[in-house]
Amino acid sequence: MDCQEKLEVPVYTDVDRETFLRDIYPLRRPVVLKRVPLGPCVRAWTVSYLAEKGGDREVKVHVSPEPRMDFLHKNFVYRTLPFDKFIQRAAEAKHSDFFISQDESYYLRSLGEDVRKEPADLRKQFPELAEDFYIPQFFEPEQFFSSVFRISSPGLQLWTHYDVMDNLLAQVTGRKRVVLYSPKDALHLYLTGDKSEVLDIDTPDLQRYPEFVKACRYECVLEPGDLLFIPALWFHNTLALQFGVGVNVFWKHLPPESYDKKDPYGNKDPVAATRALQALERTLGILEELPPEYRDFYARRMVSRIQSRAYIRQPMEAAQENLDTA
Amino acid sequence: MDCQEKLEVPVYTDVDRETFLRDIYPLRRPVVLKRVPLGPCVRAWTVSYLAEKGGDREVKVHVSPEPRMDFLHKNFVYRTLPFDKFIQRAAEAKHSDFFISQDESYYLRSLGEDVRKEPADLRKQFPELAEDFYIPQFFEPEQFFSSVFRISSPGLQLWTHYDVMDNLLAQVTGRKRVVLYSPKDALHLYLTGDKSEVLDIDTPDLQRYPEFVKACRYECVLEPGDLLFIPALWFHNTLALQFGVGVNVFWKHLPPESYDKKDPYGNKDPVAATRALQALERTLGILEELPPEYRDFYARRMVSRIQSRAYIRQPMEAAQENLDTA
Repeated sequence: MDCQEKLEVPVYTDVDRETFLRDIYPLRRPVVLKRVPLGPCVRAWTVSYLAEKGGDREVKVHVSPEPRMDFLHKNFVYRTLPFDKFIQRAAEAKHSDFFISQDESYYLRSLGEDVRKEPADLRKQFPELAEDFYIPQFFEPEQFFSSVFRISSPGLQLWTHYDVMDNLLAQVTGRKRVVLYSPKDALHLYLTGDKSEVLDIDTPDLQRYPEFVKACRYECVLEPGDLLFIPALWFHNTLALQFGVGVNVFWKHLPPESYDKKDPYGNKDPVAATRALQALERTLGILEELPPEYRDFYARRMVSRIQSRAYIRQPMEAAQENLDTA
Repeated sequence: MDCQEKLEVPVYTDVDRETFLRDIYPLRRPVVLKRVPLGPCVRAWTVSYLAEKGGDREVKVHVSPEPRMDFLHKNFVYRTLPFDKFIQRAAEAKHSDFFISQDESYYLRSLGEDVRKEPADLRKQFPELAEDFYIPQFFEPEQFFSSVFRISSPGLQLWTHYDVMDNLLAQVTGRKRVVLYSPKDALHLYLTGDKSEVLDIDTPDLQRYPEFVKACRYECVLEPGDLLFIPALWFHNTLALQFGVGVNVFWKHLPPESYDKKDPYGNKDPVAATRALQALERTLGILEELPPEYRDFYARRMVSRIQSRAYIRQPMEAAQENLDTA
């Protein structure tokens, strides 16, 4: 991993809504925001308080024998627990009660009432705890999509993926390392859908994933009370350095009709993108009428066409063109 | 141009049909074939003989003030001349009769009777000269598509392009340098349709065409009597080192129904490829419903999908996969 460029996510302190919207948001790049008021949760959310106030409402959680969860090869199971029990188990390193093993890891991504239709909203699922958490008011209320608990065992690592909504990830308690990759690095991440096949981002198998070194790694460590802005489409990989509670709030960035209406998770591609990807499958179906060497060639011509018509040109290229036409 | 890899086109001598079809043709790579019997043309086709036997039949020729013709920016004009007059002008360095200037360059690519419908066939357009040229019998007669005169002034350079037919290019008289690029280098050649934008392949503008260095350059110098096999889709750029007469014979490689029926030149993409490229345009039209950063991202996801579904994997990658699954 000699070659992967590493950058720190910029950190801003005491940013207000106006500054955020004027100076930060338009850049569409991740930033860590310190001292954004998140409410009493930052001090109040101890294990016992969470268990008490969250109550015994049932939650569906990821349970994994290994702390590095692998969605593509499903190395974890889903189990249901009362919230208070889950909190206790996630906060402890070794379990006397367990599903798989005494050192299994837990991860909760909270869901809506009707998990297939309704996005998560802490105010509905956990009203007493939600009172403690002030949703950062950087966006318009109608842009709100969902608010989601992200609670995990120490050491738990979530696969690299992207979401289609803008994301304000509040790290209420515990420390969390977050590694991010730009949407421009999509080709270097070995994607299956919205997820990267490269699970071990710290010591990746470069024989298998040689392009991965070309991806630029953005990294930050969130301290309790920090807020991370993850723009839509930015890939992120989280690693809980301690037991911790996060709340992430998803916000619509595109006009509301752009989004898939059946998407409680906020990770289905915008409808136009889905249609384009489906149209591409049909296009590739046509190419299959040709023998492999012709298919390969016209696939390359298609790539060349996509690059020239749909890629945002790098500023250097654009500048060069300006020079040329001056 | 420090980095462009350069390879010589392999040269074979006294190859017969059987050897060609067994050892050479399946590789789908260019080769120079020496001592393939081309008939009396090799000795007979002097300027005066060509003028006499070709007669005063009118031919449409490219006339260019510069020897390096540029199709994309059209630095040449089409003019009509009697064949015998054209031969005399193409063979001389300075002209007393000219269209543009006394050192203008000429290039003939002969055409069929009905230029928009019928492929060129020397036996029909130049029956007396055609008798002198033996069409190499490497393929089945029904694969024959066209036979074309390529006659040019000394110094004339033809832009880099590909054709969709297999090509046996017989250099009957004069010497010609041919530079070729693999279809796999399509992305490094800055294509507009079937033509490369990079005109000056010897001292290219790498600020403008930085990817061009990644293309591997195959080169050969054809001596009178040499035959060059150019597989369909291989890019080629010709430079007449002397006044010379070439005949190229195009042959169908794909099943006949694969080709565009309205293609007298043999350079229209196979029908499935054209349909795929058109379907891609519609796909890109859908992507335009998204803002630029989303369009860029989903364009990259499309490229990733095309690469994994339609590219022929490199032997190394395939070998790696075999290791992985072993």
